[in-house]
Amino acid sequence: MQKIKPGDTVILVDQDGNKYKVVANDTTVKVRNLGVADLGKLLKVNFGDKLTLAGTDVIALEPSIIDHLETLERKAQIVIPKDCAYIILHCGIHSGSVVVEGGSGSGALTVALAGAVAPGGKVISYDIREEHQAVARRNIGSAGLSSVVDFKLGDMSKGLEEKDVDAVVLDMAEPWTVVPKAAEALKVGGYIATYTPTANQAEQAVNALRTAGFTHIRAVELILREMVVTEGGIRPSFEMLGHTGYVTTARWLGP
Amino acid sequence: MQKIKPGDTVILVDQDGNKYKVVANDTTVKVRNLGVADLGKLLKVNFGDKLTLAGTDVIALEPSIIDHLETLERKAQIVIPKDCAYIILHCGIHSGSVVVEGGSGSGALTVALAGAVAPGGKVISYDIREEHQAVARRNIGSAGLSSVVDFKLGDMSKGLEEKDVDAVVLDMAEPWTVVPKAAEALKVGGYIATYTPTANQAEQAVNALRTAGFTHIRAVELILREMVVTEGGIRPSFEMLGHTGYVTTARWLGP
Amino acid sequence: MQKIKPGDTVILVDQDGNKYKVVANDTTVKVRNLGVADLGKLLKVNFGDKLTLAGTDVIALEPSIIDHLETLERKAQIVIPKDCAYIILHCGIHSGSVVVEGGSGSGALTVALAGAVAPGGKVISYDIREEHQAVARRNIGSAGLSSVVDFKLGDMSKGLEEKDVDAVVLDMAEPWTVVPKAAEALKVGGYIATYTPTANQAEQAVNALRTAGFTHIRAVELILREMVVTEGGIRPSFEMLGHTGYVTTARWLGP
Amino acid sequence: MQKIKPGDTVILVDQDGNKYKVVANDTTVKVRNLGVADLGKLLKVNFGDKLTLAGTDVIALEPSIIDHLETLERKAQIVIPKDCAYIILHCGIHSGSVVVEGGSGSGALTVALAGAVAPGGKVISYDIREEHQAVARRNIGSAGLSSVVDFKLGDMSKGLEEKDVDAVVLDMAEPWTVVPKAAEALKVGGYIATYTPTANQAEQAVNALRTAGFTHIRAVELILREMVVTEGGIRPSFEMLGHTGYVTTARWLGP
Repeated sequence: MQKIKPGDTVILVDQDGNKYKVVANDTTVKVRNLGVADLGKLLKVNFGDKLTLAGTDVIALEPSIIDHLETLERKAQIVIPKDCAYIILHCGIHSGSVVVEGGSGSGALTVALAGAVAPGGKVISYDIREEHQAVARRNIGSAGLSSVVDFKLGDMSKGLEEKDVDAVVLDMAEPWTVVPKAAEALKVGGYIATYTPTANQAEQAVNALRTAGFTHIRAVELILREMVVTEGGIRPSFEMLGHTGYVTTARWLGP
Repeated sequence: MQKIKPGDTVILVDQDGNKYKVVANDTTVKVRNLGVADLGKLLKVNFGDKLTLAGTDVIALEPSIIDHLETLERKAQIVIPKDCAYIILHCGIHSGSVVVEGGSGSGALTVALAGAVAPGGKVISYDIREEHQAVARRNIGSAGLSSVVDFKLGDMSKGLEEKDVDAVVLDMAEPWTVVPKAAEALKVGGYIATYTPTANQAEQAVNALRTAGFTHIRAVELILREMVVTEGGIRPSFEMLGHTGYVTTARWLGP
Repeated sequence: MQKIKPGDTVILVDQDGNKYKVVANDTTVKVRNLGVADLGKLLKVNFGDKLTLAGTDVIALEPSIIDHLETLERKAQIVIPKDCAYIILHCGIHSGSVVVEGGSGSGALTVALAGAVAPGGKVISYDIREEHQAVARRNIGSAGLSSVVDFKLGDMSKGLEEKDVDAVVLDMAEPWTVVPKAAEALKVGGYIATYTPTANQAEQAVNALRTAGFTHIRAVELILREMVVTEGGIRPSFEMLGHTGYVTTARWLGP
Repeated sequence: MQKIKPGDTVILVDQDGNKYKVVANDTTVKVRNLGVADLGKLLKVNFGDKLTLAGTDVIALEPSIIDHLETLERKAQIVIPKDCAYIILHCGIHSGSVVVEGGSGSGALTVALAGAVAPGGKVISYDIREEHQAVARRNIGSAGLSSVVDFKLGDMSKGLEEKDVDAVVLDMAEPWTVVPKAAEALKVGGYIATYTPTANQAEQAVNALRTAGFTHIRAVELILREMVVTEGGIRPSFEMLGHTGYVTTARWLGP
């Protein structure tokens, strides 16, 4: 395994499975929920090694996208991994893709998209609220994906500067205001996705996509059920997040 | 948009949204469900262009991963995109990842994994049945991902040849027979996923993962509901695939 | 077990579990899907006995409510038992209750309600379409529940003739038009339920109930998953009815 | 509306919709969560009237079955109304039915069953734990259903004293131990239901029902989703009880 270098983001996992995100550096800092830790120790070990920090035995991991998503700084409601994953695959997004995102939100979806298009691709993330984008920017930075993302302040319903993009992904309250502009920015064969909490928004998104001439329109809800295994057997968990949002995907085949 | 070259796989979409997968070449062939088509015409147009083939107006698209998944040759039950997507993101799989898959099946999951690790990564796909792997191999070939996938015939419960891989993904009847061997093949911080139709299999997978010392074990079921928008409003579709399989993910933090 | 008498409705179950609804009488008739049967034979046996009719071995059962619901004559989409059951219990409906229903539809919900309020109770079932009510009337008749149900032709949005009823149950396209009138007909402590296919209708029902001053308003969807047990274990069925309708219940505590 | 008499159980509902169950009597008592209340005031009003008790404006309601179920004294996990309702209708249970229940638990299902068979029917409720049955007995008592229920202490896997019953409903850890004995107690055409938390238990119940010769075997799970209506529209609630239990129903058509 690779040696940890100064500036590397490192995920520390303790014996209870808790995760702490730190940046390896020759400093001693307070790590939230872990305690005061001499992070210089990390520079003497490899990713995958065990060490003791703030009196706790931890393993130092090279962060995965899931690690980044689970240790985000949050401001607003975020798009959770199940929905990010669905959007990425169903929009054909892969390394090298150019994706326009609106809005940046806290950057959860931005991180997932950036992880999928890297290397060689680009996420252009629009938001109209600078304070939201600041959070997204920090999260993208600590995920080491800054070079993959261009943040833009602006109202997408007024038009997108991009052309021939592979996908447009909209996590905003009124995605239908952007749909006609998204069509102008997409390549033929490109995808659009909207993510909205209410059924009414999903309905309005579908209708806007129909009006704008998109094809293969499909609105879905992904219900995630955790299963619990005890001595008595297996059953769905009593605890459950009842809903996240509706995802609508469609394809642009030209006017 | 890019010019279509001989040997390129092309997705043709007609006005009803039906898809046909062909290989551009100076030949006239029978395309299933479309008719006898002069594919040489494709060599004169760009991806994204409209043309008439077999008397039908079509658009010629550069295939996305979803296009490949929707036009697979199938032999066995396949892992559908929602579950592929969940596995890819929750196992931290991205461009450059090295993933061991067992078994190859018809290659649906193989295609999705290969699309996610390309370029720079590798999928090593094991199966014990040569005839299954032959189908997977053809599907990977027509998806243009042959260079990303190594197919191996062999019984993973006897051990894996690979070391320090990023993820092991098991779509087989008895994944628990492979779990201890998967641990030996994974890097510290690596992920495992199993996909199984019955609750009992998910239970046995969880128990095997616990026994083998995996952490962050999580068994889930993803229920996909399509929403229908009519003049009367929006509602879940009456038609529904009631179940696909349970996905269990876990992480390897060392023995 | 009780002897079968002329005029008794009898459910015949064959060895494959198929059900046939007949009326015991000294006649030979063609029974749909079973063949020409001498129904006079039924008058010589008891409920629960085996006999041969139209060359098929059958058991003669006294019909349960579920038998009636499964052998209905259908014209429109019906309310299926899971939703009938939810409405009945959550509206506190029991033997002796007085319930106003609108509309009659094919009478599935009417049969379930009538079975619950008998003996001593009453279902008053409104519809504006005589041809629908004719079907409901036949279904109630063959369920032997005619004395429990009063059918009325009329538009409930113009007002209900009933006062101090225990519950009002609305299976109609625009239940909100009836909500204010339902409030006038309900006793203090009485219940209302609406059943509608789309989310928009459920939303509009909730808003109408709020405006009219109902309390304990609750909109739900009941998702029924069948489980399949094979040699390999237990799993949800692949076949599934994806949606029936949203049920909204509320209580009337006075103006 | 009817005058409240001494000994009547009364549900008080305050302006926030909270419910308090009391017995009308010429006494002043401490009502949990409400305060010290002069219950003698209830004897001067009718069901449905408003009054002030313990300084709070309340409405005095004649309890419905749902009121009883929502104000139960609880010891163990209870069967919630959606599952009670499903069992009652799918087992053809109605006024006059004779139902054997095992075990009594806290009496939630007992109350629902008793409410359904009254008047004229009977619930015979077995349990092997006297302390559980004591809770069930108190809940049945305060629901005014004591005359409808016979409690028995005993192990049903050793046999049931009853014959020709309409239904046997099993809410116990190992219902398969009782299934063969239930067959002996049921009338031809009678129903059985089991309620169990894990998938393995449901599987074992199905297999026991098959072995014992039951027909029309059906294992289901009822997923209840609450819908939330806000200004922004309608969506499933984020809060959700992820699972209650699997219900298996079957019919006895004789040996």
